[in-house]
Amino acid sequence: MEEKCISNSRRCYKQWFGFMVLIMSFCVSYVDAVWPMPQMISSSMARYTLNPREFLFQYSSGSSAQSGCSVLDSAFKRYFPLIFTDYSAARPRQHDEWFRFPFTVVVHVERAECEDYPDADSSESYKLSVRSGQAALRAETVWGALRGLESFSQLVYQDDFGEYFVNETEIEDFPRFQFRGILLDTSRHYLPLHAILKTLDAMSYNKFNVFHWHIVDDPSFPYQSSTFPDLSRKGAFHPSTHVYTQIDVKRVIAHARLRGIRVLAEFDSPGHTQSWGKGQPGLLTPCYKGTVPSGTFGPVNPANFSSYQFMTRLFKEVTSVFPDSYIHLGGDEVDFTCWKSNPDVRGFMLKMGFGTDYTKLESYYMENMVNITKGLNKTAIVWQDVFDYHEKIPVDTVLHIWKGSPGQIQQELSTITLAGYRVILAAPWYINHINYGQDWKTYYTIQPLNFTGTEQQKKLVIGGEVCMWGEYVDATNLSPRLWPRASAAAERLWSDERMTSSVIDAYPRLVDFRCRLLREKTLPRSQG
Amino acid sequence: MEEKCISNSRRCYKQWFGFMVLIMSFCVSYVDAVWPMPQMISSSMARYTLNPREFLFQYSSGSSAQSGCSVLDSAFKRYFPLIFTDYSAARPRQHDEWFRFPFTVVVHVERAECEDYPDADSSESYKLSVRSGQAALRAETVWGALRGLESFSQLVYQDDFGEYFVNETEIEDFPRFQFRGILLDTSRHYLPLHAILKTLDAMSYNKFNVFHWHIVDDPSFPYQSSTFPDLSRKGAFHPSTHVYTQIDVKRVIAHARLRGIRVLAEFDSPGHTQSWGKGQPGLLTPCYKGTVPSGTFGPVNPANFSSYQFMTRLFKEVTSVFPDSYIHLGGDEVDFTCWKSNPDVRGFMLKMGFGTDYTKLESYYMENMVNITKGLNKTAIVWQDVFDYHEKIPVDTVLHIWKGSPGQIQQELSTITLAGYRVILAAPWYINHINYGQDWKTYYTIQPLNFTGTEQQKKLVIGGEVCMWGEYVDATNLSPRLWPRASAAAERLWSDERMTSSVIDAYPRLVDFRCRLLREKTLPRSQG
Repeated sequence: MEEKCISNSRRCYKQWFGFMVLIMSFCVSYVDAVWPMPQMISSSMARYTLNPREFLFQYSSGSSAQSGCSVLDSAFKRYFPLIFTDYSAARPRQHDEWFRFPFTVVVHVERAECEDYPDADSSESYKLSVRSGQAALRAETVWGALRGLESFSQLVYQDDFGEYFVNETEIEDFPRFQFRGILLDTSRHYLPLHAILKTLDAMSYNKFNVFHWHIVDDPSFPYQSSTFPDLSRKGAFHPSTHVYTQIDVKRVIAHARLRGIRVLAEFDSPGHTQSWGKGQPGLLTPCYKGTVPSGTFGPVNPANFSSYQFMTRLFKEVTSVFPDSYIHLGGDEVDFTCWKSNPDVRGFMLKMGFGTDYTKLESYYMENMVNITKGLNKTAIVWQDVFDYHEKIPVDTVLHIWKGSPGQIQQELSTITLAGYRVILAAPWYINHINYGQDWKTYYTIQPLNFTGTEQQKKLVIGGEVCMWGEYVDATNLSPRLWPRASAAAERLWSDERMTSSVIDAYPRLVDFRCRLLREKTLPRSQG
Repeated sequence: MEEKCISNSRRCYKQWFGFMVLIMSFCVSYVDAVWPMPQMISSSMARYTLNPREFLFQYSSGSSAQSGCSVLDSAFKRYFPLIFTDYSAARPRQHDEWFRFPFTVVVHVERAECEDYPDADSSESYKLSVRSGQAALRAETVWGALRGLESFSQLVYQDDFGEYFVNETEIEDFPRFQFRGILLDTSRHYLPLHAILKTLDAMSYNKFNVFHWHIVDDPSFPYQSSTFPDLSRKGAFHPSTHVYTQIDVKRVIAHARLRGIRVLAEFDSPGHTQSWGKGQPGLLTPCYKGTVPSGTFGPVNPANFSSYQFMTRLFKEVTSVFPDSYIHLGGDEVDFTCWKSNPDVRGFMLKMGFGTDYTKLESYYMENMVNITKGLNKTAIVWQDVFDYHEKIPVDTVLHIWKGSPGQIQQELSTITLAGYRVILAAPWYINHINYGQDWKTYYTIQPLNFTGTEQQKKLVIGGEVCMWGEYVDATNLSPRLWPRASAAAERLWSDERMTSSVIDAYPRLVDFRCRLLREKTLPRSQG
């Protein structure tokens, strides 16, 4: 029996004390079992016994997905042990032999996308009906079916004797926001592959659907490029142990796909590129001290045509390796000091008629980058700085909001959506910033659409993202810092705000959900 | 190869980025290998090859400890794999066959205490001399020898080819403070046994020598008492999975003993005892609402003689289970509200002539507790509150400072030591309070003796303690929260303050030491 949670008729006796003030009273009360909260859920106290030996998943005859559908076949395999958490340990009482019924989860999918990748417009809606001794799961796509299977698995609970039950339940569900992301930063610390895969597992329990892979940055370049192998050979913390090979990347993408998770790769430039310079001489801007090079380097050199040639080749590779139709180009926190010090850059400024306004120069650079990726049939996502500099960027570009006070964030949301751009909200969920105590409440009570704007503007907020920047995070502490704190944002981004406005109501449900994360070893049960 | 650290000639390339600002430049510089810093260490670049196949520990002929000494025999077994960290993986190059020499660590102990327990007055000093192809380790006691073995193991490093080396080194070492503790709180969260044992391992790498086991408190009573089994049966989070049996406790004490670590048990009263009341009806004070009992309970009832009878029996058991000559009686944060509400307690106050000064009542209670444990031949440690209430407590009682601003702490140190009491300083090291960033620097720069007082008063500061209270800590996050943050305090408490005053100098050494913690799996390498 796992040491922190003793699940018993949906009640969780021993919890995280951080979540535990008054827990005893919470825990004897009924706990709604699905996190994040479905859009519509109703259940009765009538319950069915589930017997692992006579339980099966089944495609409905009319379903367009049938046996052989890679996404669902593997999900069925995965969810059996997630539902029957201690199957081997389950000891049915003698008299149950008389009361044993088979139980079937019948899955029906309208449009199968079994061999596709989930993408920005993938439907995740589903209907789940548990009644008359079976469960009927209906979804437009396999991605919705995955969400429904997750919800079903959370409905199942055990009694004191290890017997499994599911209550009569009706669920109609769909995500509030289409984009629900988690950012991992694998440059400031290298994250071993298993840490990334485990995070993807946990994301699927939380119905997150975008893994934003901030794969390279100043400190290291772990992405092993086939076109430019020197980038990781010279730019990674270690050329063979601290890199992501092409096979590693394919594994991450495949693991994510089977869980309905998109992999959004970010190759941030022109700033945050110190590690790029090591393997690509001439790419970065040489900084000057007076009239002589200082030996240090700044952002990518926007005055050299060769920079754009390099980026075109790199992104040609990257966009073919990462199937998602979106690519993240970064564009944040560009320091102009080095550009200003460099005579060639200054010359280029004059030639282009930018005067001394270096935001124009960055605009020019990002505009080229967006066009490069557009030429590769990808839609660009960039950090808000790019908008703040008023680039002439295509209106389908997505702006990623990451900074500012609550007031400034609301203002930014109004301004950007008024200009007709879609936005992703990350600023309130910089979860790497730890605090003492229950800061999940802060993440939970964020209201993403609480800004001045028309209905049309609000629709342009396509979602939000939890960012786990890597300055102080590695495989030793990633998962206890991420979960269940990120789960608070997961519900905010999936569920109806009106049904999930109270932290008091959310608390016992989150405690209960954390027990599931412990059961599934999303959180380490030991010190490793 | 472990994923975060690539040890190479004492240099650590991939580190915790939290410790990594400018790390590349730090890491190519020479890193002094022993943490905490010995009182005197000198080493040359002359180095000896260590060959696992021809390496042995050996007692000197004159040593009073000889083969059969349980503490050292098991330490030799333990340190071999700690020294040859990837022995199985070590692939000596062919030509080394020619250069292979045997290497012996000769251990000499003046007074063997092989079968004893470490205690308050145990000597931990040692001398280590690595020269002319062998290491000579001399210590007064086995406890000092353990510290020397730890230092020796930290001196050994590998080159790129997996070859092991140790440099010619002279060390003379002893702890600055006699009491260097870590507090774990197993009441707010139950900590599984393996989490406690792993913490003891890590403590030995850091030369901590006291495990302060805050074993029970308001939320739960996991200690399984043989005299009062109902205390855990009714007061633990779970009567069978969330308890420490007598065998568990013996395992912890034995594991600690072999590492030269004392186990200081705390049974905190009269406050912090809510969980006690469940298994011991009549122990706690019934709170009143007006003239009727409210149904809630307060601190232990100091007006009932039966309370002291119970405590006498409980502590008779506890003091026999825990061999250390000290016992922690708590005595902190007593809320008088409930006592004030209770007519019997008010009557007792009158009878005793305490008037309405409830601090006198607590003084009376604690005085009795101290006398009870004195009668059991144990010296009491109590939280500072007990002194603040001016109890007439024996002058050999140790005061534990846990609260106040830096100024108030200095004042408290002056006042208590002026009164002739010994103190343990915990207040600056409440490490459960997490912050974003490198807060280890705060813990490192504490100056325990920076208060107004005579030399004699300063001598009364017997040490310090790192407290990891359990509100938000369990097995999922204990170890990454504890290490290496607690290591900063470890050096402050062991080393010479003048040699270890700079965080800049400490930084690369701490980074290097953290690599060792990772190698020894003190920190989880994975998400578990």
